[in-house]
Amino acid sequence: MAKQQSIGQYLLNQLHKRGVRHIFGIPGDYVLGFYGLIGKSPIKHIGTTREDAAGFAADAYARVNGIGAVCVTYCVGGFNVTNPIAGAYAEKSPVVIISGAPGLKERERNPLLHHRVKDFSTQKEVFEKITVAGAALDDPLTAYHEVDRVLYALDRYRRPVYFEIPRDMADASRRHTRRRESSIPLADPETLREAIAETAAMINASKRPVILAGVEVHRFGLQDSLLKLIRKTHIPVAATLLGKSVISEAHPMYIGIYEGAMGRKSVTDYVESSDCVILLGAFMTDINLGIYTANLDQGQSIYVTSEKIMVRRHSYDDIRFRDFIAALLKTKLKQRKKPKLPEMHNIGAEPKPPPDSRMTVKDLFRELDGFITKDMVVVSDIGDCLFGAVDMRIRKRTEFISPAYYTSMGFGVPAALGAQLANPKLRPLVVVGDGAFQMTGLELSTAVRLKLNPIIVVLNNEGYSTERHIADGPFNDIGLWAFNKVPDLLNAGKGFDVETQADLEWALRAALDNQETFSIINVHLDKYDKSPALARLSERLAARVKGAG
Amino acid sequence: MAKQQSIGQYLLNQLHKRGVRHIFGIPGDYVLGFYGLIGKSPIKHIGTTREDAAGFAADAYARVNGIGAVCVTYCVGGFNVTNPIAGAYAEKSPVVIISGAPGLKERERNPLLHHRVKDFSTQKEVFEKITVAGAALDDPLTAYHEVDRVLYALDRYRRPVYFEIPRDMADASRRHTRRRESSIPLADPETLREAIAETAAMINASKRPVILAGVEVHRFGLQDSLLKLIRKTHIPVAATLLGKSVISEAHPMYIGIYEGAMGRKSVTDYVESSDCVILLGAFMTDINLGIYTANLDQGQSIYVTSEKIMVRRHSYDDIRFRDFIAALLKTKLKQRKKPKLPEMHNIGAEPKPPPDSRMTVKDLFRELDGFITKDMVVVSDIGDCLFGAVDMRIRKRTEFISPAYYTSMGFGVPAALGAQLANPKLRPLVVVGDGAFQMTGLELSTAVRLKLNPIIVVLNNEGYSTERHIADGPFNDIGLWAFNKVPDLLNAGKGFDVETQADLEWALRAALDNQETFSIINVHLDKYDKSPALARLSERLAARVKGAG
Repeated sequence: MAKQQSIGQYLLNQLHKRGVRHIFGIPGDYVLGFYGLIGKSPIKHIGTTREDAAGFAADAYARVNGIGAVCVTYCVGGFNVTNPIAGAYAEKSPVVIISGAPGLKERERNPLLHHRVKDFSTQKEVFEKITVAGAALDDPLTAYHEVDRVLYALDRYRRPVYFEIPRDMADASRRHTRRRESSIPLADPETLREAIAETAAMINASKRPVILAGVEVHRFGLQDSLLKLIRKTHIPVAATLLGKSVISEAHPMYIGIYEGAMGRKSVTDYVESSDCVILLGAFMTDINLGIYTANLDQGQSIYVTSEKIMVRRHSYDDIRFRDFIAALLKTKLKQRKKPKLPEMHNIGAEPKPPPDSRMTVKDLFRELDGFITKDMVVVSDIGDCLFGAVDMRIRKRTEFISPAYYTSMGFGVPAALGAQLANPKLRPLVVVGDGAFQMTGLELSTAVRLKLNPIIVVLNNEGYSTERHIADGPFNDIGLWAFNKVPDLLNAGKGFDVETQADLEWALRAALDNQETFSIINVHLDKYDKSPALARLSERLAARVKGAG
Repeated sequence: MAKQQSIGQYLLNQLHKRGVRHIFGIPGDYVLGFYGLIGKSPIKHIGTTREDAAGFAADAYARVNGIGAVCVTYCVGGFNVTNPIAGAYAEKSPVVIISGAPGLKERERNPLLHHRVKDFSTQKEVFEKITVAGAALDDPLTAYHEVDRVLYALDRYRRPVYFEIPRDMADASRRHTRRRESSIPLADPETLREAIAETAAMINASKRPVILAGVEVHRFGLQDSLLKLIRKTHIPVAATLLGKSVISEAHPMYIGIYEGAMGRKSVTDYVESSDCVILLGAFMTDINLGIYTANLDQGQSIYVTSEKIMVRRHSYDDIRFRDFIAALLKTKLKQRKKPKLPEMHNIGAEPKPPPDSRMTVKDLFRELDGFITKDMVVVSDIGDCLFGAVDMRIRKRTEFISPAYYTSMGFGVPAALGAQLANPKLRPLVVVGDGAFQMTGLELSTAVRLKLNPIIVVLNNEGYSTERHIADGPFNDIGLWAFNKVPDLLNAGKGFDVETQADLEWALRAALDNQETFSIINVHLDKYDKSPALARLSERLAARVKGAG
């Protein structure tokens, strides 16, 4: 028999037990009661300027901490987190959404209460589409079990889940008998054995295997298993873009990011000429595949994810990712001689331009590569800042965060808050385009209140520049902001205006010294400049078109 | 046989025919082809900093113009407009959403294309929950008819509709045979006759009837019919909060806003003592009913909306709002002697405080009441700015815009763009809280690009003050911005910092003279100050609790 707790308290306790120490969000009248409960719990509430920013922050928090949470009011709050939650779903980030709702008593006779859209269930029905499980905690008889069931789904699938609490239910309670854990559907041991045997045989028979590590290695906490596998076999490893930094990019067996034509040629050649590509927790998205310029032979691949295990062209059903990796590590695998690897490209070693030369995307990331330290987490927004950041070498692991599949603009600045709250030892370096900063960058307001000290580098090229390279038009133009003046508006922070190499070096030094508050560096770039990765993609696509003509 | 147009062109032509002259939104790769078509059409694209701002702007545009449109990319764009579209649904504002989507060819073999969430249909399924009709235009055989069908639903219900265009379909075409209009379900003439007869008899038999006009009078374009009805009968009229300004507030038969305990006592008494309340197009929401402090007797009411027609406690089904009003105007109704009406409260006539007195919410709205001209549209955000704005007298009609039912914060500034684009003769005066401004206020960036000149009055009381009066806690605190410095960030506009009455008068004069660009007035208020309407509500609720004790 558990101690009698209200439904709201029970939910908070379960979240705390799983590692939630901060809940992001904005209050509203339907959720004020639950906010009161947060105030009395050991979990801290973090207010943001906008709900979507709270969603992005919770997502980044989950990526660093293993679980994150966001708490909003009914509809006007809930609908504002649909985009970040859809992104967390797409990229498997375990975020708990908690929403207030009108009280059950108030709903009698179906009145038009404020914030209501169609039916009282409309919001819940929407979240069913973008979460892996959810429950309206509207009955004290079942609510405790529903909390258990839904959080079990989060643990199992590492994807967002949804709770809705009618405002007269947060404080309701009933003695809670803990239900036995749902029996976990385990793979048939024979199936697992067969899959492992075939996998091991294929790896052992191969001449030049390579591992392609993806983001699920992080989501399921298998970074150490990956290292063990490499140590045990001496198989080299590349990472997908979304998986960047699941392994330290300074690891001696690491060869770089694989992303088809967008990647470095040496990495692409190494992976594509392998006779056994072991994809671990990698999503085969268009972005990870360099807009489908990747050229992997399924007949020579082993594809292991939480959703699917495939050897060559056949699949083994219902084997869990974690179980497969554990079994693989226990199997006899040949240890090879350490192969000759392509040299890791070191952009930091490229020559510096003269101090008075105007900034380019390439020079910016060369400089940032030398600037980042082991105590930093690099958070990238979407666009050429992401393509440019690919070439930065992340020294430790899981210190590169970006929405590289769902690619929602505006992720960067709010995500930096989440990452730094999840691990206060990490200082965020955010790279973000001017268009994306205009969406959510003023969330720095919250960094000020929390005394966080992210360094924000704005790639200011006067518009949606990645799109300019696809189809240009006046719709890619945006307003011109003096981003370095943000500190004046927020009464805090330091701003820098950068035109040249010398400006940048000075600004980065000053930002590093500015420990107390945020720094924002407004880097003026040519409207049509692009990163080497974007240039590589354009070239290869052009060559392909030519070859076809 | 219509001229051969592509699906995208046909949609744009149909929108243009219905009055769409501007489409708000942000491009993305899945919708770039359609953006190209907009560029070649007579409709102008208006880029915003964020998609939700585009949604709010399109909503306000629809409120002024009769129809509005927003165009976004798949998922990362679409999910960001769910909140404004849910609001437009709740408050019946006819907004067309157009979203790009992955091409049909790309979807073969179900790949993980960027922005995808669960299935390719996920976004469409979400919008089904918050629109009145929708279609994926994925088949040239049916697409043209689908456009017709969906836009017919918009015309009929004045609520948002949804179109999704796979990117390889925008340019697809097929000769289009125009389908005959779906036969409109008309009411049985006998039912309409009976309803009108009963209504007319009840009105004619009443001693002191009163009309309560709601926002549907505007949505269905029945403002002139309302005036005719008043002229014909000499029945006085009040408005709901959401319906504020469906009739000029200077009209001699207008008595004010009815909203239960939140309203002026004279109006509440007049309406509640009437023996025949004719509710025309009024939503009976909790906000319109003064958080259910309203006291209307259903047995003495006639309730006419687009959804329902009720006389006392029985309803007549499927009679259209417009048909009912037209029939009522043709019926014999008694013309009364002009009744003695409660005097319209004139806050502008209240005494001015001394020039050096610190600003209060009450004094602010007294001053604004005298400030607004016939060429202004007042746009209110949510919170005490709305409660305060209730007392302002709007001189013309439909020149007060606010989301008074759905109450989504952050509506104000983007809505001002939409309103001014829909009618360039109107200069927006926006009243907005500091919390709401932090959500979407930087959309002023777009006002700069479009050379619009709204005047923004920020009620700066350091947090979510309406909530402070319900349940206070640190979660109601927000970052402190120097709102008057926004012009520095945006390289345009004029900012004013207001502490006293004299400051305000000076700032308003200067803002009025600043015709070229936006003005922002940062009005510092006490953290716990409140408007007279909010004070009235608190008092009455307190009295009620006391009475019950």
